[in-house]
Amino acid sequence: VLGRTYERENCSAARALELVGERWSLLIMRDAMFGGARRFTEFERSLGVASNVLAARLELFIDNGLMQSQRAPDNAEVREYVLTPKGLDLEPVILALSAWGDRWAAPGGAPIVYEHKRCDGPVHLELRCDTCAESLPPGETVAIPGPGMKSG
Amino acid sequence: VLGRTYERENCSAARALELVGERWSLLIMRDAMFGGARRFTEFERSLGVASNVLAARLELFIDNGLMQSQRAPDNAEVREYVLTPKGLDLEPVILALSAWGDRWAAPGGAPIVYEHKRCDGPVHLELRCDTCAESLPPGETVAIPGPGMKSG
Repeated sequence: VLGRTYERENCSAARALELVGERWSLLIMRDAMFGGARRFTEFERSLGVASNVLAARLELFIDNGLMQSQRAPDNAEVREYVLTPKGLDLEPVILALSAWGDRWAAPGGAPIVYEHKRCDGPVHLELRCDTCAESLPPGETVAIPGPGMKSG
Repeated sequence: VLGRTYERENCSAARALELVGERWSLLIMRDAMFGGARRFTEFERSLGVASNVLAARLELFIDNGLMQSQRAPDNAEVREYVLTPKGLDLEPVILALSAWGDRWAAPGGAPIVYEHKRCDGPVHLELRCDTCAESLPPGETVAIPGPGMKSG
């Protein structure tokens, strides 16, 4: 157990939340990743988010390399916001949130299911131990200080 | 692609974020899950979060069944906040955020590593297709309407 050494600034989950932990951030990423949204008006319409909030989030994503802004192919005056590899790599976060919501907050069944593009198979996240190769249920994992832990 | 049917209220990721998307929420869950925190003062000290915010989050977690409040074994006047199975099941969300932060926001290496309790092996999340059994990198997954999708 890490106890008091588990400080906020020294944790990758906390660093991730600094970039994507604000209200709407992960829903914007979700729309870009799975909803086909690229334009300001598409995000705005899909989410019903205030335009100043949406603009601030997109700017943060661009400044931090999660998205790139480019001209729309059919209209040079329209900007499109597309995920970079760093942004796309948030896919497991979105899928983990969705899976949890499906299990605990979807009495009518999963509203959205995720499938493998190439074979249409259902996909799931699993936590696996590299040593014993077991698939681990919640509670089988401990956190210990790693190479990037600041001393003191 | 879901396009306009991908509405906020009809998505399990959005429902999950309603419960754990506020500032501090996932860091509180992380401290409960991996940092050994159980008491109000332990969360407060570890996070440096304002006590009124912490109290509101813990109350939300209890009201929604993510935590239970119980008397401390050594002092009946002290409350402890412990994760329920529903709360503990957020483990993949915390681990997905941590893994992303390790890859993109940890220049000095992972500050914290996660290990399998029983064999000390490193653990990792993977996205797997149930049909072809392939492990999928980001971008290989599509979202389609599921059984719980509201029509109209």
